[in-house]
Amino acid sequence: MPPPETDFTPYFQGKKVLITGGLGFIGSNLAHRLVELGAHVLLVDSLIPKYGGNVFNVADIQDRLRINIADVRDEHGLRYLVQGQEVIFNLAGQVSHTDSMNDPYADLEINVRSQLSLLEACRHGNPQAKIIFASTRQIYGKPAYLPVDENHPLQPVDVNGINKLAGEWYHIVYHHVYGLQTVSLRLTNTYGPRMRVKDARQTFMGWWLRQLVESQTLQIFGDGRQVRDFNYVDDVVTALLLVVVNDSATGQIYNLGGREPISLLDLAQLLINLNQGGRYDIVPFPEDRQRIDIGDYTGDYSKIRHELGWEPQITLCDGLARTLDYYREHLAHYV
Amino acid sequence: MPPPETDFTPYFQGKKVLITGGLGFIGSNLAHRLVELGAHVLLVDSLIPKYGGNVFNVADIQDRLRINIADVRDEHGLRYLVQGQEVIFNLAGQVSHTDSMNDPYADLEINVRSQLSLLEACRHGNPQAKIIFASTRQIYGKPAYLPVDENHPLQPVDVNGINKLAGEWYHIVYHHVYGLQTVSLRLTNTYGPRMRVKDARQTFMGWWLRQLVESQTLQIFGDGRQVRDFNYVDDVVTALLLVVVNDSATGQIYNLGGREPISLLDLAQLLINLNQGGRYDIVPFPEDRQRIDIGDYTGDYSKIRHELGWEPQITLCDGLARTLDYYREHLAHYV
Repeated sequence: MPPPETDFTPYFQGKKVLITGGLGFIGSNLAHRLVELGAHVLLVDSLIPKYGGNVFNVADIQDRLRINIADVRDEHGLRYLVQGQEVIFNLAGQVSHTDSMNDPYADLEINVRSQLSLLEACRHGNPQAKIIFASTRQIYGKPAYLPVDENHPLQPVDVNGINKLAGEWYHIVYHHVYGLQTVSLRLTNTYGPRMRVKDARQTFMGWWLRQLVESQTLQIFGDGRQVRDFNYVDDVVTALLLVVVNDSATGQIYNLGGREPISLLDLAQLLINLNQGGRYDIVPFPEDRQRIDIGDYTGDYSKIRHELGWEPQITLCDGLARTLDYYREHLAHYV
Repeated sequence: MPPPETDFTPYFQGKKVLITGGLGFIGSNLAHRLVELGAHVLLVDSLIPKYGGNVFNVADIQDRLRINIADVRDEHGLRYLVQGQEVIFNLAGQVSHTDSMNDPYADLEINVRSQLSLLEACRHGNPQAKIIFASTRQIYGKPAYLPVDENHPLQPVDVNGINKLAGEWYHIVYHHVYGLQTVSLRLTNTYGPRMRVKDARQTFMGWWLRQLVESQTLQIFGDGRQVRDFNYVDDVVTALLLVVVNDSATGQIYNLGGREPISLLDLAQLLINLNQGGRYDIVPFPEDRQRIDIGDYTGDYSKIRHELGWEPQITLCDGLARTLDYYREHLAHYV
């Protein structure tokens, strides 16, 4: 069982690595780490304005990697781009729950069809690649018990959850049937520098961070007692690397999860303390969000802890402080 | 709790009923029952040659219903066709497991995207309709225990299983979020008159029936000890009607299942006895089937039995005899 301080350099030095959604939040943080490790990094991103891709996210390392602007829905482009890649981090996705209800077809094309395209491209053109899929706690739906482990029933509450579920299971089936080396990580709320803060469509955390920095009033839906868990993006990046370097992870599904579950009310208070100022209002749930809300959620990440030694290293307090610092400095590039 | 001898006439008399996949096996048997009950029946079917649609299936009642040839992938056509329908039996689907692996995109379009189209069409144009979705035991994958109940983990082993899972969950989510009156029936192996017997792509049962009638040798894959359960199509039709007339079924998922699980070896022997002749060979699993085989399967149908009083009425022996009789008389229309 490797400790979280695994030295990833021997594995990634000189490795050819593709990241779909590479200009997005998690993709760009991963790219920074991989560049440090000496990997040959190719980022693929569609730069669809309302999604998370942002060229600024890699402005400081743009000479140390390659960027290919392409939409994962472009089946033929994808077929070319996967060729020769040794590791593929498949992070491109539509992540807004409300968007998935308003335009279920776009969500379907990106989160379902494109996953099939990537797997078909690898099956025919690059069957040796390691493929890491960024799945989501959303596929569990409203928890039947807490914390939610990987055996929890899959009962998504919105189109996005259904489509991510299908996308994940393509990866599992292509492993079992064709021997592709796939792994799925079911992420919980991830936050940190380079996240999208433009509006609340993707995450309320990003929106809150922006509002704090702009001295606006945060809005908490419902009674604020909903519990969530959070991972700082660096911890998620470590998990992504761990499932690559450990062959035993191939074909597996792992939850990530936070060490410090917190209610939204307490989170807002923590953010305001860290920001040394700010205020919030408690407002009724907007109807379109209420209908797909999942109540409390905390993830059980003991499987990846036991098998791969992963554990979150950054406290919520520390991670939020770093993130606030980042947006105080760089907000103009994200709004 | 209504007994299985529920009189469906008061409900269906004069009702406007749409059946997608209406010229197929289950759809056409359902159409016969509905016409008897006095419903106004509209069948929609694509008549794609390699699928199950067959105009002969309703030749004897073609003056008592309407047929509209259309593909459920035609989003605009569907939007028109659902208008004014009081009950929609959503049976159109790609059902071949091996086809889903060979052409995953076609399976995706039919089993995922078209389901979304139908639900979106109803949401915007006919939110009052009752919508019954024909799901499948395939979404459970390889059973973790037997008999498989509705709480069994969903871990499909092929693209078809994943896509049917997504299609089913769209129905569930559109119920919870938009109040559409949807029900999902998870069917096990269904057999009977009007099933597709052209080849073994969809069901081995159809293929065996044809081979028996044509005095060919049946082939059993593996060791023949795999257990399956079977429903005669009339029992499935009764289940489809029961979930419509019982409002309590709305938003629910129900397994169907057979009363007499049987190994493939014993099934072959039973068929040969009923046919008063025939032979079988035991042959190794073809590789493409082995990889997606689920081992033994029997379904637990106690939920629908307790809640709606459904229970299979036709014994396997009786049902197979009727089916053999049908194909002895009508085989020419099915090959």
